[in-house]
Amino acid sequence: MTHIETLSQAVNQFRDERDWRQFHKEKDLAISISLEANELLELFQWKDSETVLANKQESLRDELADVLIYALMLADNLDFDLEEIIMAKLEKNRQKYPIEKAKGSAKKYTELSE
Amino acid sequence: MTHIETLSQAVNQFRDERDWRQFHKEKDLAISISLEANELLELFQWKDSETVLANKQESLRDELADVLIYALMLADNLDFDLEEIIMAKLEKNRQKYPIEKAKGSAKKYTELSE
Amino acid sequence: MTHIETLSQAVNQFRDERDWRQFHKEKDLAISISLEANELLELFQWKDSETVLANKQESLRDELADVLIYALMLADNLDFDLEEIIMAKLEKNRQKYPIEKAKGSAKKYTELSE
Amino acid sequence: MTHIETLSQAVNQFRDERDWRQFHKEKDLAISISLEANELLELFQWKDSETVLANKQESLRDELADVLIYALMLADNLDFDLEEIIMAKLEKNRQKYPIEKAKGSAKKYTELSE
Repeated sequence: MTHIETLSQAVNQFRDERDWRQFHKEKDLAISISLEANELLELFQWKDSETVLANKQESLRDELADVLIYALMLADNLDFDLEEIIMAKLEKNRQKYPIEKAKGSAKKYTELSE
Repeated sequence: MTHIETLSQAVNQFRDERDWRQFHKEKDLAISISLEANELLELFQWKDSETVLANKQESLRDELADVLIYALMLADNLDFDLEEIIMAKLEKNRQKYPIEKAKGSAKKYTELSE
Repeated sequence: MTHIETLSQAVNQFRDERDWRQFHKEKDLAISISLEANELLELFQWKDSETVLANKQESLRDELADVLIYALMLADNLDFDLEEIIMAKLEKNRQKYPIEKAKGSAKKYTELSE
Repeated sequence: MTHIETLSQAVNQFRDERDWRQFHKEKDLAISISLEANELLELFQWKDSETVLANKQESLRDELADVLIYALMLADNLDFDLEEIIMAKLEKNRQKYPIEKAKGSAKKYTELSE
């Protein structure tokens, strides 16, 4: 079992050892999360999920890790508690997508019938 | 202290209660991570980091949480151990960016001098 | 003076000579536009606009062209008239951002005062 | 037949009437292209191309137009000739993807066999 704080420490120690926090304005970290998300997405360009899963396991691990690494850096910059923000957002999502209405439906909450 | 497995369980229980895994092809989860990353980035459109941090704390929490929620779902689909993929990628990054060369430099590893 | 239809023809001839239309599902073209937009954005990662404009003219040309190339392909797939969709969207934007309210303001239309 | 310069003029007149060029740093325009590309991509989230084409024609027109509008603004900021950058990039792509090797193949140029 891993504490998320341990992961966050490892990620932030990596950048502090390189004295990189000076470059890590939050706007650039948000840009970086988008860039890494698109490198992950690029693995799926022109392909279906099955083909990618069968052939790109290592790249999937690397690119998903990069998204998480920048997300942990931005959370640290913002002094966010990861458990708190995830649990709070899940609670909001539970309100927007009540089980009885959302079960088995891919509709956006704005399209769920009253 | 929070175990990351606990967060992952909460996120994946949320979608399983709604029977959403049928829609969650990995390609669409990768798309969703990019979409959420861009909703986070949108907070910074036309603005500098300071202005956003002063005025958009709740939106920052929500949008960063959404990125993490979809990343935890994709990691679960792929049966990835989050600690393992993050620690392995940090190790790769340490090779690409040795402290003595990378310290205080924002250059890409392909541009670091020999 | 260049007709936009001439540009669209050149772009679509490029892919037809390579028999690529079979891979160009609209969802994948939309993914590709996002990927190219992020390669363009990557030029600005950790940097301000002035630095990028002073040092990355060729990359800016290439990456912006890639965004446009995929956009012209998707427009062709969808049989959209480029002038028509751009002029129609500008008209919608004029409604959302009337000059007297929007002039000199970076606010979103949802935030413009009544 | 439409001259692309006419479209570019219409787009840039729209922002100049609102005195928006002061906000339009190139970095923020690049961010905006990514944001609009993701709004276009969002139409395809959880769906296949056929479903989206059958149900979302107007949204497709609007979102693709938004990508093009910001691309035309950035091109204007950079004083790029659209025909020139597109034709020059197509020529580079022809070198990377010669017809005899690339025909009928979705491989990246780095993966095309010698």
